[in-house]
Amino acid sequence: MHSFTNDYNETAHPQLLEALLNIAKQKNGGYGLDSYCELAASHIKTLIQSPQSHVHFLPGGTITNLTFIAHVLRPHQAVIAAESGHVAVHETGAIEATGHKVITARCQAGKLSPEVIKPILDEHCDEHMVQPKLVYISNTTELGTIYSHKELRALHQFCQAHQLYLYVDGARLAMALSAKDNDVTFADLAKYTDAFYIGGTKVGAFAGEALVINNPQLNHDFRFTIKQKGGLMAKGWILGVQFLTLLQNNLYLELGAHSNNMAGQLAELFQQCGFSFSHQPQTNQIFVNIPDHLVKAITDHYDVYAFGKPDDVHTCLRFCASWSTTQDDIEKFKCFFNNLQQK
Amino acid sequence: MHSFTNDYNETAHPQLLEALLNIAKQKNGGYGLDSYCELAASHIKTLIQSPQSHVHFLPGGTITNLTFIAHVLRPHQAVIAAESGHVAVHETGAIEATGHKVITARCQAGKLSPEVIKPILDEHCDEHMVQPKLVYISNTTELGTIYSHKELRALHQFCQAHQLYLYVDGARLAMALSAKDNDVTFADLAKYTDAFYIGGTKVGAFAGEALVINNPQLNHDFRFTIKQKGGLMAKGWILGVQFLTLLQNNLYLELGAHSNNMAGQLAELFQQCGFSFSHQPQTNQIFVNIPDHLVKAITDHYDVYAFGKPDDVHTCLRFCASWSTTQDDIEKFKCFFNNLQQK
Amino acid sequence: MHSFTNDYNETAHPQLLEALLNIAKQKNGGYGLDSYCELAASHIKTLIQSPQSHVHFLPGGTITNLTFIAHVLRPHQAVIAAESGHVAVHETGAIEATGHKVITARCQAGKLSPEVIKPILDEHCDEHMVQPKLVYISNTTELGTIYSHKELRALHQFCQAHQLYLYVDGARLAMALSAKDNDVTFADLAKYTDAFYIGGTKVGAFAGEALVINNPQLNHDFRFTIKQKGGLMAKGWILGVQFLTLLQNNLYLELGAHSNNMAGQLAELFQQCGFSFSHQPQTNQIFVNIPDHLVKAITDHYDVYAFGKPDDVHTCLRFCASWSTTQDDIEKFKCFFNNLQQK
Amino acid sequence: MHSFTNDYNETAHPQLLEALLNIAKQKNGGYGLDSYCELAASHIKTLIQSPQSHVHFLPGGTITNLTFIAHVLRPHQAVIAAESGHVAVHETGAIEATGHKVITARCQAGKLSPEVIKPILDEHCDEHMVQPKLVYISNTTELGTIYSHKELRALHQFCQAHQLYLYVDGARLAMALSAKDNDVTFADLAKYTDAFYIGGTKVGAFAGEALVINNPQLNHDFRFTIKQKGGLMAKGWILGVQFLTLLQNNLYLELGAHSNNMAGQLAELFQQCGFSFSHQPQTNQIFVNIPDHLVKAITDHYDVYAFGKPDDVHTCLRFCASWSTTQDDIEKFKCFFNNLQQK
Repeated sequence: MHSFTNDYNETAHPQLLEALLNIAKQKNGGYGLDSYCELAASHIKTLIQSPQSHVHFLPGGTITNLTFIAHVLRPHQAVIAAESGHVAVHETGAIEATGHKVITARCQAGKLSPEVIKPILDEHCDEHMVQPKLVYISNTTELGTIYSHKELRALHQFCQAHQLYLYVDGARLAMALSAKDNDVTFADLAKYTDAFYIGGTKVGAFAGEALVINNPQLNHDFRFTIKQKGGLMAKGWILGVQFLTLLQNNLYLELGAHSNNMAGQLAELFQQCGFSFSHQPQTNQIFVNIPDHLVKAITDHYDVYAFGKPDDVHTCLRFCASWSTTQDDIEKFKCFFNNLQQK
Repeated sequence: MHSFTNDYNETAHPQLLEALLNIAKQKNGGYGLDSYCELAASHIKTLIQSPQSHVHFLPGGTITNLTFIAHVLRPHQAVIAAESGHVAVHETGAIEATGHKVITARCQAGKLSPEVIKPILDEHCDEHMVQPKLVYISNTTELGTIYSHKELRALHQFCQAHQLYLYVDGARLAMALSAKDNDVTFADLAKYTDAFYIGGTKVGAFAGEALVINNPQLNHDFRFTIKQKGGLMAKGWILGVQFLTLLQNNLYLELGAHSNNMAGQLAELFQQCGFSFSHQPQTNQIFVNIPDHLVKAITDHYDVYAFGKPDDVHTCLRFCASWSTTQDDIEKFKCFFNNLQQK
Repeated sequence: MHSFTNDYNETAHPQLLEALLNIAKQKNGGYGLDSYCELAASHIKTLIQSPQSHVHFLPGGTITNLTFIAHVLRPHQAVIAAESGHVAVHETGAIEATGHKVITARCQAGKLSPEVIKPILDEHCDEHMVQPKLVYISNTTELGTIYSHKELRALHQFCQAHQLYLYVDGARLAMALSAKDNDVTFADLAKYTDAFYIGGTKVGAFAGEALVINNPQLNHDFRFTIKQKGGLMAKGWILGVQFLTLLQNNLYLELGAHSNNMAGQLAELFQQCGFSFSHQPQTNQIFVNIPDHLVKAITDHYDVYAFGKPDDVHTCLRFCASWSTTQDDIEKFKCFFNNLQQK
Repeated sequence: MHSFTNDYNETAHPQLLEALLNIAKQKNGGYGLDSYCELAASHIKTLIQSPQSHVHFLPGGTITNLTFIAHVLRPHQAVIAAESGHVAVHETGAIEATGHKVITARCQAGKLSPEVIKPILDEHCDEHMVQPKLVYISNTTELGTIYSHKELRALHQFCQAHQLYLYVDGARLAMALSAKDNDVTFADLAKYTDAFYIGGTKVGAFAGEALVINNPQLNHDFRFTIKQKGGLMAKGWILGVQFLTLLQNNLYLELGAHSNNMAGQLAELFQQCGFSFSHQPQTNQIFVNIPDHLVKAITDHYDVYAFGKPDDVHTCLRFCASWSTTQDDIEKFKCFFNNLQQK
């Protein structure tokens, strides 16, 4: 069965595999204290124009989120996230398991803004309630949408004014920064956030996320917490060398752009057929509302996630393209879909 | 200033003070292993017609909730509560601090029902999300409303069918069980819940809540968790003797009925003036919508909590009566209020 | 049966009961924000000559320890305690339950010193190990011994030099500060520690400990953590008024001195009989090594704790005197014991 | 510089790299629900002769330990470990961070036995202390020693008799099971333990440990906790395919035997020179006591860890061999060392 399930269903991009093979015979220092991690960190700091930032490599998104959040919050402090936020929904209570509430905000397009955060601050007015302290957003969001430069800066200014940390989950940062509508740069992320991570797992890496801590106070003793939570990889260089490869020659953003391009063709196809979308298609995830009579035929041939029913006669299906999706995959789907429509 | 702020602003009911004085010269065993706690527990088990239940005395509501919930949930399991639930809002993330998410449900009159819980179960379908396991309700609710026998039984049956624990926060259980509209008995609570607590602090005790665990499996090793969380009082008999006094001769429900009666007179007064209520007045908390031009005059003379604005020209004020509110307090308010109205 | 079990087996000292009765008809603000807590705090700050300190009243020793420690440590930081320390042994893992390791040191007389702490710091040298951050001592210790001024100052200087917090569990501070050998003052505690608590439960209070935070940074947002852990008493004034009474007219230290005096007479008696002690008798707990053939006769008539066997023919029994032990109790024991010896 | 630092300083064994390359073009299901994980699990269950066991693949030792322990213990329960145990010393309080105390036992050769555990159980007698529930051992131990069949069975029987779980950290299980003195089999581990893990990181894998849960009750909902703690790898098959490769054709034990063999030659060399050992050399870690005047010369040329000083004139150095250590490496060291001796 063909798959548009997700963007992490192939082992790794060939260049990353090659990079690993190239160093297979070398001995390296353990726990991320090796020259590849150092080089990759240095490369990232140049890329984001933020020499004072600190970079840590962790093996996955959930452990990156929980480690950073557990490290920076005091016991009574809480996270603010969109109702659709990954930490709020899809990490099995990982943040709560470290002791912190995730306050969720109802919002549009999966995006937080000062307007939706302000009432939460107002409500949390004394010691009988948790103290909101960290604003968690993801870019791209869980719904495939992206933050504009203006939106990100507004959040930054609001967080500064209210002594909140701003943290960006960048599991799909490559797709966000390479989206057609995007006007956010790596340097903006360094400038506007206390920390963000550059996601590898969904952009061609075996595993691995590069956490960038821009607020130096939050970096203090951070390696202790990485170790405590189980994210300090003995063979850290395996993460370092992958990021080095991804970030050289712009491969990272190219893979993001490719993912978006493949998905964009699907979105265009659906739009031409007059289908609507549950969320505006901006990156590599397309949430399209499919008439119910077509759903089975599609899911019989293609692996996709169903995301509820927007109305009585449609089902929202998520088509997710990746760095490994080929133009041929898209053409085949178009063929399949046109046949289906004509039946 | 006169006070309708809350139901815990006086030290203790005279009969409880007297009971404590009576035993002042005795030596007792520590940590709740004394004859008064034993007698009080025995009395409770008779009252609720549940000899196999277990009773523990703890010093406050938050520590009772967090200790019980931490004890019975496994790491990946979560609480379901109303959006207005005390554990969800007003315990500074106490439940999350023990590692568990509190999933909140939007609901009417502050009450959960199978209808609002079912979609939450449906959404939490795999290991990427927490596993809902304990349904937390309070009776009275935070909004002063009460559960009917039918509603409680429906929750019980639903929880049984879905392997959920049902837990009742009874901080104001006296007010609930003595409300005019009530048809729930102590025995129903034993029959329909896995655990509930009989609140003392808001019903004339210095401090103290009697936690009743009806599901014997959940009681196993419970004293370890009480100690660990800091709720095992060295002089436990002080809690025991208060509950013994409260539950003899029906004092507990009488204090609840008195609180409701005092508040009910206020509700009647407001109703006669044509004021509306944010929540149906059923017990000792009255959430009345006061025209804005009267608010200052009232709050200048009476200590009450403001609970937001139902519309542009009204403010919701909470009037809370207690066991120590007197008929004279009510008459004085009526006087004050009638004068105010006539101005 | 007569009891030398512990120092918390009677409800409360008569002056404290009276103080509570005197305010029984008053209405007070909730959660420790009342005039009695304010007055008691002010009184304490005068007593310890530290106007910039902050005082909080909590209902018991375990919850005071766990709340303070959870509040001030970051996730990777640990407590250092004596192997006999209360937090290490007798709080059911309360500190670990908030996420922090308790590193234990083997030491003499239950007392920590720079000499036993230094090697622990040396061993904990990188991020693969927890970071020792808070030195927990109790005065009196669990073994009834006390810290001298010189010992306390040495710990203070060592902690300052190594960026460690120094915290004193003062469950029996009254006994320590009123011991015959004592040369530590309340002001020393304020000067030399980051925080300490003045224990009430074992010195005549219903319940209650007064936590004094001398390091202002550690006080920030502390009430949030009190509430979260379940220690914020709705009727906080009940704790406040007790401490106000205890600390006026020197009652607190008098009760400590009385407890020590009563126990001291027992120690003298045992010494005259040629018995040895497992720990030097300095305060109100006497750990005496009783020949095995006398143990049953004693424990048949007196409630005391057994603390293991120092050798094959002796058992260590703890005799604990309290504010409520009378000279008559002592005389009766002397009589009983002399009879026993003569058999 | 030559390295005998550790056994995880090269990327991966060539066969594992090859296996990964072979599947590079395939699409796989996420989160360990793929055919390679299924096959590897099935292979392991055959190998250990325990079809009812459950196998989970996690990315590292610390996260495996903390996830399993957090999953199976109730809040008041504790781990018993040797004072040198990895969870006790070198995981930055990972277990405590999930809420559980690690009780340490002083013991010989880094090994627990019923004799050292029994007094711990005796001391932990009531709810004022944690409840010991899980016995953690590692095989090989942190000191390079191994458990005999008789020792393991004795622990099993003791744990069964006292309702304790027995858990084996198998970071270096390959070295233990392939040691010259070993008489323990994979099947013994399945039979005698509630759970154990087969370590991959130190035996040629990129990363990865295979946790085997033999007690079916402990497996219930385990994937929830893996996800919550951050150990559920999106591309789980990368772990699965490595274990499939390691366990086919006995590669796993061969790599263990090779590591032991290389280290054994070093031990022999040291013994011939009359050097003593801090711990009996049984596997791939050699703790040899080197005369102080030779230490610098060695550490100038070889990367090794220093482990304290057994006496005033010796330093204990750890020489650790691995799957990637070659006979040539050993010969060179012999040469170097003989030269050194002759100087």
